[in-house]
Amino acid sequence: MRKLSVGVIGLGCRGYSMLPLLCGMENYDIVCVCDRYHDRTEAGVRFVSESYGRQIKGFDDWHDVIAYKPDAVLVITGWEDHMAISFAAMEAGVAVGCEVGGAYSVDDCFKLLEVSRRTGTPFMLLENCCYGRYEMMVMNMVAQGLFGTIVNCEGGYRHDLRTEVLHGAENRHYRLENYKHRNCENYPTHDLGPIAQVLGINRGNRFVELTSFSSAAAGLNDYARLHSDVPAGLADYKFAQGDVVKTVIRCEGGQLVTLTLDTTLPRPYSRGFTVQGTRGMYCEDGNYIYLDRDHDESMHFDWSKRWGNADTYFEKYEHPVWAKFLHDGVRGGHGGMDYLVYNEFAECLLEGKPFPITVLDAACWMAVTPLSEISIREGATVRFPDFKE
Amino acid sequence: MRKLSVGVIGLGCRGYSMLPLLCGMENYDIVCVCDRYHDRTEAGVRFVSESYGRQIKGFDDWHDVIAYKPDAVLVITGWEDHMAISFAAMEAGVAVGCEVGGAYSVDDCFKLLEVSRRTGTPFMLLENCCYGRYEMMVMNMVAQGLFGTIVNCEGGYRHDLRTEVLHGAENRHYRLENYKHRNCENYPTHDLGPIAQVLGINRGNRFVELTSFSSAAAGLNDYARLHSDVPAGLADYKFAQGDVVKTVIRCEGGQLVTLTLDTTLPRPYSRGFTVQGTRGMYCEDGNYIYLDRDHDESMHFDWSKRWGNADTYFEKYEHPVWAKFLHDGVRGGHGGMDYLVYNEFAECLLEGKPFPITVLDAACWMAVTPLSEISIREGATVRFPDFKE
Repeated sequence: MRKLSVGVIGLGCRGYSMLPLLCGMENYDIVCVCDRYHDRTEAGVRFVSESYGRQIKGFDDWHDVIAYKPDAVLVITGWEDHMAISFAAMEAGVAVGCEVGGAYSVDDCFKLLEVSRRTGTPFMLLENCCYGRYEMMVMNMVAQGLFGTIVNCEGGYRHDLRTEVLHGAENRHYRLENYKHRNCENYPTHDLGPIAQVLGINRGNRFVELTSFSSAAAGLNDYARLHSDVPAGLADYKFAQGDVVKTVIRCEGGQLVTLTLDTTLPRPYSRGFTVQGTRGMYCEDGNYIYLDRDHDESMHFDWSKRWGNADTYFEKYEHPVWAKFLHDGVRGGHGGMDYLVYNEFAECLLEGKPFPITVLDAACWMAVTPLSEISIREGATVRFPDFKE
Repeated sequence: MRKLSVGVIGLGCRGYSMLPLLCGMENYDIVCVCDRYHDRTEAGVRFVSESYGRQIKGFDDWHDVIAYKPDAVLVITGWEDHMAISFAAMEAGVAVGCEVGGAYSVDDCFKLLEVSRRTGTPFMLLENCCYGRYEMMVMNMVAQGLFGTIVNCEGGYRHDLRTEVLHGAENRHYRLENYKHRNCENYPTHDLGPIAQVLGINRGNRFVELTSFSSAAAGLNDYARLHSDVPAGLADYKFAQGDVVKTVIRCEGGQLVTLTLDTTLPRPYSRGFTVQGTRGMYCEDGNYIYLDRDHDESMHFDWSKRWGNADTYFEKYEHPVWAKFLHDGVRGGHGGMDYLVYNEFAECLLEGKPFPITVLDAACWMAVTPLSEISIREGATVRFPDFKE
């Protein structure tokens, strides 16, 4: 099997933890790794040497990775470097698999489209949640018409990141600076990716406008006050990022999409993926499917009977991609999603197939961040740019 | 024990179903009933006669109930008559217990306050969900500081009412005309009542502004097309009411409140009551409590372990009202909430105590409906009136 020669840029917790998966994949040939912090670069080179007996190049400057000319780079850095690295790689004809995160400006989204169009270099946003088992089953059921006409979708990145954010300085994590200085839906694509696919965004449907709202910022301060191991100065720091950001997007097809960013309060993890149509629905919180065909009002009030039944639908409605994956053996992190999205990236490149997540998709999903920032700052609804123009 | 002499106005499904509870309560003396449809009035009189051996008056015109001068009237009619009846009763010095529903105009909310101030006649919005067992436990926990500083609340009236709405003409139900002609958050108070109490609205905090969004209206049409028993003409009727209406309210204290109206799609019932603070949270969807004190990230991804644990907190944090209620024996509909709110109304009147739900509360909660209607129509954020001015 032909392998994709790949440089990995960014070896923070996400990038470093991806190395075992990537080194073990049949269609990947990791030829170099890179991090701006030399110790991380060294650790990456050492890991590949010790675990796989292979000597690969290590660079501290991502420009050197592009100059090394692998088939593709994987951009797994802090959010703020995603676009600069991607643009440079595309200009050099090196394909880009870019990890998720919001854009820093609408201009960057337009530029992504422009660079892609002009250079023709492949770019794919590696949104693993588009490959979640439940998300894919829901897409399959929606495609088969089981939910009827879709009118409402909800999703969230609801993940308690207080320790990650507050210890960002020691851990060299990019979130801290973002939470200090920006107030926005800073991580929209986990929930928006699968929702956009369900709604056929950029396939006959489009996002029309967006309004975002922010709560006060109280979670990080309160946590810092109660935990003496949190670095000094954060208990009273006036963070820009509100604890909860709600974003409502209106779609041309009449659907509403509501996103919730909720990362600085105590809570269990949930992406709250919810899809509602005229004949049925799925809701991640409770992991239930409700279909006119199968259910009725007797489900009222007794939550113990109505939750968790989504698993019983796998037998009939498992997405073919997942059926094959389960048959072959699930691999990789985040319940297998990481393998599937990275595998898709390599497979498309090696076989010359179009990416299922297009550059236009990436621009639309990532634009939610700067649009939400404008909406919160101005207290106004913001039109979604028509990126096709 | 002194009893409150009461006239019941409105004997549709809600009013009629309340009769057994009301007739059995020690502090209520039901002296007359009323419905604009004579057969309903007759049925009410007959029920009280046959079940309780008591002859009471029946009126078809609510003016006659007020003229009959009971201590109080209970207004359980269609939403559109709530305010006119309440105003007339208050002008006549007859106390009002008014069932829930949104207002039809902001002017009506101002008028409610004006009439109340001028006449001094007691008025209470009978929001039963303020007396829900979980809601009250959450209020108790919030009051004890267990959730820290509250920054985000969510709630919804998510109830599949398609048959009720579509068969409204035969069943003389008021919802049908509302869904035909209005597009708004038409039933805000079930979720907003408890949330406002948690947030101390009108007790040092206030709603500042509101923005509402509506999805397309597709649920009723699709249902009507598939069900031949639905009256003709509704499968293609262009309903004004969107299937899902999202409303985001910003509070002076920096909290966000997100309401969801979701009544014309297939789904299990949920009010989605959610309260999030800097140290803990409650969520109805999954019925879970998550506290920094008790939980950690090991709850990730395994929903079967994290849901349903709210019940384990009753032992320590049951609200005193509910502890007494359970001790005395839970009575009445909707899990006991109906008894508690109707009992509170009578008890306050008989003992001369102030209502826990003030006229200002009622005006603020009910104003969400006309404000949401304006917001959806104009595609704009609407300032919340300062009803205290």
